[in-house]
Amino acid sequence: MTGREPLALLDAGVDGDRRSVARLLSMVERGGDDARAVGALAHARSGGGYTVGITGAPGAGKSTLTSSLVSVVRGDDTRVAVLAIDPSSPFTGGAILGDRIRMQDHALDDGVFIRSMATRGHLGGLSLATPQAVRVLDAAGFPWVLVETVGVGQVEVEIVGAADTTVVVVNPGWGDAVQANKAGLMEIADVFVINKADRPGAGETRRDLSAMLDLTHDPHDEHGRWRPPIIDAVATDGTGVDELWGQIAAHRAHLESTDELGRRRGRRAREELTRIVAERLLLRARETSEGDRFDDLADRVESRGMDPWSAADMLLGSGS
Amino acid sequence: MTGREPLALLDAGVDGDRRSVARLLSMVERGGDDARAVGALAHARSGGGYTVGITGAPGAGKSTLTSSLVSVVRGDDTRVAVLAIDPSSPFTGGAILGDRIRMQDHALDDGVFIRSMATRGHLGGLSLATPQAVRVLDAAGFPWVLVETVGVGQVEVEIVGAADTTVVVVNPGWGDAVQANKAGLMEIADVFVINKADRPGAGETRRDLSAMLDLTHDPHDEHGRWRPPIIDAVATDGTGVDELWGQIAAHRAHLESTDELGRRRGRRAREELTRIVAERLLLRARETSEGDRFDDLADRVESRGMDPWSAADMLLGSGS
Repeated sequence: MTGREPLALLDAGVDGDRRSVARLLSMVERGGDDARAVGALAHARSGGGYTVGITGAPGAGKSTLTSSLVSVVRGDDTRVAVLAIDPSSPFTGGAILGDRIRMQDHALDDGVFIRSMATRGHLGGLSLATPQAVRVLDAAGFPWVLVETVGVGQVEVEIVGAADTTVVVVNPGWGDAVQANKAGLMEIADVFVINKADRPGAGETRRDLSAMLDLTHDPHDEHGRWRPPIIDAVATDGTGVDELWGQIAAHRAHLESTDELGRRRGRRAREELTRIVAERLLLRARETSEGDRFDDLADRVESRGMDPWSAADMLLGSGS
Repeated sequence: MTGREPLALLDAGVDGDRRSVARLLSMVERGGDDARAVGALAHARSGGGYTVGITGAPGAGKSTLTSSLVSVVRGDDTRVAVLAIDPSSPFTGGAILGDRIRMQDHALDDGVFIRSMATRGHLGGLSLATPQAVRVLDAAGFPWVLVETVGVGQVEVEIVGAADTTVVVVNPGWGDAVQANKAGLMEIADVFVINKADRPGAGETRRDLSAMLDLTHDPHDEHGRWRPPIIDAVATDGTGVDELWGQIAAHRAHLESTDELGRRRGRRAREELTRIVAERLLLRARETSEGDRFDDLADRVESRGMDPWSAADMLLGSGS
């Protein structure tokens, strides 16, 4: 503990103290009892914020697009937080460093909170920590939380797929749409952005995406199901950013009017709970295979004084 | 249950009734309570048998070699059992069918028991079922159990690596030794066989294997550590099979004289116990994520009446 309780830090965060918010997020990243205390508190006080996930291949222009979206949101003087999920340590590559520097457009704006989160030691750590971090930002009074992540691995796709609205960023060029499909991004996309649309091949990429959407979304659907729009953008000069923001708002309105937002959040609550249970059990399995008790029982199995199933029963403390 | 208790079936098996042994193995394959009863009984009554694993790439000639080894063992009128582990259903491919037919050389020999085991529905099923099946054969009075498996996946390598002596079969030709290394077979090999050694490239393959062994086994080792011998063989005409059997016997003698056999079996007992515990916990995690109780708690999490960590505690029935 840093000397101040989570509750005091959260109250300070709501009052605009960004350092308190940063401390809460560090507690979440570190895991353990503090993370649980922060998570439980933030869980109780969140629910008002809206999460937008932004994903795509490395170099697709996600950070520049995110930065432009932040400018649009700030035009209304609304507070906004950005959570940048790095698959490895931040600031290790030139591109990543460049992106972060570009984000510094907003460094002096007190209404913007930007935070990078790196993978922690254990598998699945980020998919457990990210929803907690989003809740902290939500509870700290940010009505918009943008989560930016590289859509390359299962964990990353899982993380961004847990947003209320998911934006998938592709670039013009043969195969980029197909890659997005392979990576599982077609299934989670609510809005597509073809960034760098001033380059050759934007038309083909649009046709590829559209053809793939036709497979899963009937163009003559009369049940009002959302069909992901495809937006041309040039993030570096702001082209298409207003349209993107408009489509994010349209998707949000769609979710809210159909109660699909509640269903999505309900599904997410279930998935998160399952993940927490699975992580606890994994931890328990590891603990179970260590220590004197395991050694004693394994010795008895080896000397045939006990069969391995009975030994497992005793280790797990039940007759199951 | 088939109407006869495991104990009666095992007694009949010891008296030479192969149908009883087959029934016990079917119980093990099916899993559940019967498998546990059979496993516990066989565990208590086994330990006298010796297990030889035979592995290698598909088409390396494992089945022919195994069949030749069976002939050698039968020369002493010793009973022998063969457990053929198929990564998929048996008798689906021409090569496998051909191999099995070749094994039928021993079909009329009451002292030989041959059984194919296929993967069961769940992951890791074979790595749990195989040691149980080996124990059944051991308890049924087979002093030698040969386990033949394709060395392609982690599970298969794990299974064959659990034998007392592991024979890795490669063929002449550039890269075969390197492939064996990549598949993790170098680490588990106690004896190497270059089968089809009458074909070109046998010399290079021997040199490759030898060079790789040099990396992990000091040729001037004075501590008496076993260095896997490399045997040339032509399984189809029996060349090298007696030498292979001699090296298997030499390895067994080495293990027994150094007490390494006890250490190996102790390690295996621990690994099996850990796997059983992990499987139980996995099953429990699945059960935990189903049913009314999970739904009720997930609803409470969703409506923010409870945080997800407390819900996980309640599902797992503890404050851990």
